Amino acid sequence: MRKSFHQDLDEISEQLIEMTRLAGSAMSRATTALLEADLHLAEGVIAADEQIDTLRRQLDDRSVDLLARQQPVATDLRRVVTAMRMSADLERMGDLAQHVAELARRRYPDSAIHPAMRSTVQQMGQVAERIAAKAGSVIASKDIETALALEHDDDEMDRLHQDVFAMLTDGRWTYGTEAAVDATLVARYYERFADHAVSVARRVVYLVTGQFKPGADTKNEDS
Amino acid sequence: MRKSFHQDLDEISEQLIEMTRLAGSAMSRATTALLEADLHLAEGVIAADEQIDTLRRQLDDRSVDLLARQQPVATDLRRVVTAMRMSADLERMGDLAQHVAELARRRYPDSAIHPAMRSTVQQMGQVAERIAAKAGSVIASKDIETALALEHDDDEMDRLHQDVFAMLTDGRWTYGTEAAVDATLVARYYERFADHAVSVARRVVYLVTGQFKPGADTKNEDS
Repeated sequence: MRKSFHQDLDEISEQLIEMTRLAGSAMSRATTALLEADLHLAEGVIAADEQIDTLRRQLDDRSVDLLARQQPVATDLRRVVTAMRMSADLERMGDLAQHVAELARRRYPDSAIHPAMRSTVQQMGQVAERIAAKAGSVIASKDIETALALEHDDDEMDRLHQDVFAMLTDGRWTYGTEAAVDATLVARYYERFADHAVSVARRVVYLVTGQFKPGADTKNEDS
Repeated sequence: MRKSFHQDLDEISEQLIEMTRLAGSAMSRATTALLEADLHLAEGVIAADEQIDTLRRQLDDRSVDLLARQQPVATDLRRVVTAMRMSADLERMGDLAQHVAELARRRYPDSAIHPAMRSTVQQMGQVAERIAAKAGSVIASKDIETALALEHDDDEMDRLHQDVFAMLTDGRWTYGTEAAVDATLVARYYERFADHAVSVARRVVYLVTGQFKPGADTKNEDS
């Protein structure tokens, strides 16, 4: 019974890693779609979100089934519950990538991103890709160092997020309100994406150390 | 043992109702703070969020403890897992109220809301308050009709959200970029608040009927 339980748990872990990969890839493609006004790519991202949603449902059903069949306690129980919380974070990351793609589609054939904002958004996309990749390796390796290092990527995302707001509100923004609204939303999507990746990493730390960083469950965004 | 389990479950349910009440009250006060530029009120909302976070931690610990001690299966197991998901939604609703209050504080002594947007934001606040109150009664009564009725409030919130974007992007917005950025964020906070309330109601429907409305877990916002 123990062996079977841990096999199940390994498979759940594999599925979480797959969800992380899909969410990272979705955000990476959404960023390109946004910057290049690539409608085809945007629609691909939007359509692919269903796959992440399905994985989440499967993972949650499997977890509940595992709780019912194996009745785990202590650390084993905590692992299953934590996996379900991670799947919620990862599904949300997929949704946020989808939102970025939807914005790209809405403004097509224009780009939703004004040239003045392009480099910052590009960097946000890169950080998002990196942070998702790291979240995946943290789930796989349960390595605390990598989990903590991921917070630095999140700090970088927060800085970029602040850069966007500074550009919009320092009185020099002359590119119109619609572009400002789009930039506000896009910046928030990327920032929330990174928050959920941090949350995933913190859950791994919690599993390994039994310690949850305060406020980790609802990483407090600034705006 | 069964009796004790259901007592525990009732207490969890009470705590969920209390969280709903706190989240609704926080959003209601945050709306006033925002519209009246009331710094004191804003700071009260920000400080009070800790209470919702604590309730969530207690509720989750209690749920995990219940799973370990009582090893529920079938519907009982589903109830505990669903309670944990609801607590995540409710905590997030509290965070969103806090974000509204933070924005009020950031712009103090000005109001973050331009007079042109005032009536729409006021209505968003009213819908938020109503939807939170309904989510609380759905948890208490498990009444499917109320749960479904709540979707109409959410539709109203979506319309108000769209109104905000229409005002900002129809070319007639002449009140500056900062006010536009603030309105974009505020509208999103209210809309997400309502989404989480809908998610809570749908989870109750799921518990009662065993049917989960497709896409219910990550209600897809439009922007």
